[in-house]
Amino acid sequence: MPKTYSLAIHGGAGTIMRSEMAADKEEAHRQALLKALKAGEIILRAGGSALDAVEAAVCSLEDCEYFNAGKGAVFTHDGTHEMDASIMCGRRVDAGAAAMVKGVKNPISLARRILDVSEHVMLCGPGARMFAREQGLEEAGPDYFYSEYRFQQLQEARARGRAQLDHSQKYGTVGAVACDRQGHLAAATSTGGLTNKKYGRIGDSPIIGAGTYANDLTCAVSCTGYGEYFLRGVVAYDLSCLMEYRGMSLEEAAHHAIHHRQLALGGDGGLIAVDANGNIALPFNSEGMYRAWVKEGEEARVGIYKE
Amino acid sequence: MPKTYSLAIHGGAGTIMRSEMAADKEEAHRQALLKALKAGEIILRAGGSALDAVEAAVCSLEDCEYFNAGKGAVFTHDGTHEMDASIMCGRRVDAGAAAMVKGVKNPISLARRILDVSEHVMLCGPGARMFAREQGLEEAGPDYFYSEYRFQQLQEARARGRAQLDHSQKYGTVGAVACDRQGHLAAATSTGGLTNKKYGRIGDSPIIGAGTYANDLTCAVSCTGYGEYFLRGVVAYDLSCLMEYRGMSLEEAAHHAIHHRQLALGGDGGLIAVDANGNIALPFNSEGMYRAWVKEGEEARVGIYKE
Repeated sequence: MPKTYSLAIHGGAGTIMRSEMAADKEEAHRQALLKALKAGEIILRAGGSALDAVEAAVCSLEDCEYFNAGKGAVFTHDGTHEMDASIMCGRRVDAGAAAMVKGVKNPISLARRILDVSEHVMLCGPGARMFAREQGLEEAGPDYFYSEYRFQQLQEARARGRAQLDHSQKYGTVGAVACDRQGHLAAATSTGGLTNKKYGRIGDSPIIGAGTYANDLTCAVSCTGYGEYFLRGVVAYDLSCLMEYRGMSLEEAAHHAIHHRQLALGGDGGLIAVDANGNIALPFNSEGMYRAWVKEGEEARVGIYKE
Repeated sequence: MPKTYSLAIHGGAGTIMRSEMAADKEEAHRQALLKALKAGEIILRAGGSALDAVEAAVCSLEDCEYFNAGKGAVFTHDGTHEMDASIMCGRRVDAGAAAMVKGVKNPISLARRILDVSEHVMLCGPGARMFAREQGLEEAGPDYFYSEYRFQQLQEARARGRAQLDHSQKYGTVGAVACDRQGHLAAATSTGGLTNKKYGRIGDSPIIGAGTYANDLTCAVSCTGYGEYFLRGVVAYDLSCLMEYRGMSLEEAAHHAIHHRQLALGGDGGLIAVDANGNIALPFNSEGMYRAWVKEGEEARVGIYKE
């Protein structure tokens, strides 16, 4: 018997205050989230795979300048854009990840190609770019990634002399998790990293187990937050282990991972997760998290702040 | 009451056959393993930290041309050496990792410096090299890493037109895990990756949770094997979760991670692990694994094949 699908996306977590958000800006973010959700839902409604759905949803978020991934990626210290992305298929328990990639329009599609075509899981830097080119993925130059807003953020960060999160305390990573009608799960995460980042810093987004994990037996997870804490906590796989080894429900495990484990380490952020029964969890311990979610037969919903 | 220390190291796993190993070569490997073990044990015996001990042991293995890490690192497709390393402190549950690093004599000391000094967990490529230089870490040129033996391996791999494991089916990663007299744990892993590797491929060695993990509450783990399977299995953290969430002993969890989880995925390799009670586990599902281990008050032991 076919199951019902479910899909959740995020556009980053952090200090997102209702009091500081202009009404038109808030509405624009809501519409962008709904558009990305729809891009994934169309695939699931047509009987497509969770893997295709999360890739499509994240591509939509990458193409939107509001979020720190793809087109909206922040500037590095050197004034370039270095992006990280990963995707995991819960059916095959297999993954693809790309780190420190420049000039690729949709890093999540590069991660997908690594999953599908490469014998490797993770490719990095100029080598990953070369693989993207051989695979015919769309490239994009500095003009595509440039925005006055991000450039100002870089100047401010440089003036303070340190790497910083997108928009002070906002972690602009994007991600998607889905369960399709066959009960297969998938997760995807994509980011531009930290404004003014140096030394080739990599966060949790391209790391399988930390920022992204999917396994049909348990759940699909995409994280957003201060990457270093999610790396130390191996957060995405921790959630899966809490379900598999301790028997927690998705809701319990997601709550525990964010509100107990991450808070104990000092980590700030959130995650989105689905299980094979279509349950959705969207916990965060920051002020807000851009998010949208839908279950088959139900209305799509959008959230930004704590409800 | 102070605990007794324990230390284990590995020099890679794979198809290491007694029938194909010359007696003098075998003895040279045994001596190199004992030397590295001693480099770590001296620190533990003097009351030093597990973190210092695993760094010292891995430095010794990196300085030995027999193993695929540091001086003995294999050649990439482009005829260079790109090395990955990671280290984790079980007391702080904090880590440092360096990926795709060229020209640094001891990548594990770079990982240690990232742990101690950087606000980040993972640095990669030229940026990581720049950080190493700013920190005054010893550099080494192509001559230092060159060996006729490794160069021949590259020619053979190029002729076959694919990336391959060190010495056909030998995974020459090195690693160390330790428990010190204060009951603190640490783990370290270092590798030269795959001979003839392209596209900036990164395996499990620099990935916290996959190749390396340490937490005083559970265990310290360093993995060796076909990296892609260890990435997909998030093996090092899986072992920790089997202990924390399922209540397995170190021995049970290590056995389960290698002989059930990894075999189910198709992954070949092994790991070394210690817990805070000084227990040591050294499971592998390949033909052999270069390994040595010692507990306070006991004789040091060395193994290569299945016993």
